[in-house]
Amino acid sequence: MDKLHRNERMSAMLKMLTDSPNRIITLSHFCELFGAAKSTMSEDIDLLREVTKTFGLGELETVTGAAGGVRYRASVSPEERLRCIQGVCETLSGPERVLPGGFLYYNDILSDPELATRMGRILATAYFDVEADFVLTMETKGIPVALMTARELGIPLVIARHALRAYEGSAVNINYVSGSSGSIQTMSLARRSVKEGTRALIIDDFLKGGGTARGMVDLMREFNVTVVGMAFVMETTSPERKRVSDHRALMTLDITGTGEDAVATVRPAAWLAGAAK
Amino acid sequence: MDKLHRNERMSAMLKMLTDSPNRIITLSHFCELFGAAKSTMSEDIDLLREVTKTFGLGELETVTGAAGGVRYRASVSPEERLRCIQGVCETLSGPERVLPGGFLYYNDILSDPELATRMGRILATAYFDVEADFVLTMETKGIPVALMTARELGIPLVIARHALRAYEGSAVNINYVSGSSGSIQTMSLARRSVKEGTRALIIDDFLKGGGTARGMVDLMREFNVTVVGMAFVMETTSPERKRVSDHRALMTLDITGTGEDAVATVRPAAWLAGAAK
Repeated sequence: MDKLHRNERMSAMLKMLTDSPNRIITLSHFCELFGAAKSTMSEDIDLLREVTKTFGLGELETVTGAAGGVRYRASVSPEERLRCIQGVCETLSGPERVLPGGFLYYNDILSDPELATRMGRILATAYFDVEADFVLTMETKGIPVALMTARELGIPLVIARHALRAYEGSAVNINYVSGSSGSIQTMSLARRSVKEGTRALIIDDFLKGGGTARGMVDLMREFNVTVVGMAFVMETTSPERKRVSDHRALMTLDITGTGEDAVATVRPAAWLAGAAK
Repeated sequence: MDKLHRNERMSAMLKMLTDSPNRIITLSHFCELFGAAKSTMSEDIDLLREVTKTFGLGELETVTGAAGGVRYRASVSPEERLRCIQGVCETLSGPERVLPGGFLYYNDILSDPELATRMGRILATAYFDVEADFVLTMETKGIPVALMTARELGIPLVIARHALRAYEGSAVNINYVSGSSGSIQTMSLARRSVKEGTRALIIDDFLKGGGTARGMVDLMREFNVTVVGMAFVMETTSPERKRVSDHRALMTLDITGTGEDAVATVRPAAWLAGAAK
């Protein structure tokens, strides 16, 4: 291959880095690929770091040591995360969003690839430091955001199911009390899908009473897995007391009135407006 | 902002384009953002087109006309798609992958963010031209790959459910015969999640008899939606005759023997080795 110009090399590097978020790529890998010296690569990376910062495109970090190299994180700034979630809240504030029974329709938001990507990035930014080994979610609606969070963290996604399927092998089942119906339900996870002694980040779509979330925590205990964080796309303001603590949500939902008079108020969660991540 | 150098501008452009796959971004948008002339932007794009091509990072296309601009597609070359799927097949060929009952364990492959991204790109490449308005999948295991396919196509994902939930509003239910159990099952989709007269691309994890796939086609007919393509991650070689036609799969699965002697052979699908997409 002909020798590349810096602009071409830098573009290709950034594409490769952003395609493997939160994973360290060694300088030697780039040196070999582009046929350039380490010092040149370091200069490229310094320039790229400035570019991503200037345009709010995430962060490039140089990691030193034996396993060192460069790592891309799609970090979202406090301003950007608040603006993004405010936009989602506006979309969800229309009266056509409230369904009979006082439910909010937001399936389309949850499975929109672009929004799921953004919400995943916001959540990943909040949990870069907890060193999770995998993301856990409970089927179905939280899967897209959980997947995108896992992608940005560079770790696998594990999906708990309602029922054991033969094609998943031996499984661990636990029973939990569903907050919405008060009924006893089953949560099932294939034995081989999780390694003992690892660390889980729980991501799900909806937190009301916290029954399902509590179930996921109990399930992880069966696997001897530490839960290092817990986040939801939407959290109801009522009941105020949830069956889990130390969690985050992106939005809060307050439904007032009943039947045809039901009004839903969706707001960005308070922590999003803070300066810290 | 200070004027940027070409290398910085190009890197930022490529990052923005790849963050919105298959969506047209106008030249004026970039001109405004970077404070540069259209001719300069065009030169940048020509250079970026070469870069992405050289490193197999997808394609940049210039779209002319009133709604014109530049569009990034994460197209995967025939060589790269075959290499990727061959790698997955090797991972799946270990004896520990066969479960009692002759099932193959591949949940971890389906929900791995990096693999789901790659498989989504391969499938998107095969369906760029069908002009789908949305991707349809049936919960649960196919969701990650379906989401990533939708992301690369720049269209929404719609998820059919097993049961109607109150919080999804009025829904269309259809019954279908599940291939694996032979039992009658229900598939449900919220009325408001799909617009009449649009075009669907069906993506799911597994095709055996085709009962579920047939159900999805019937469901789309209820919405007056045209199915413009159908693809699966895995297809069994037996039964040879499926209840749907005109479909693709990424891999074929052949299980021979029973009980402890069951052997699974997973191969890349034949079309992957072809030159056409």
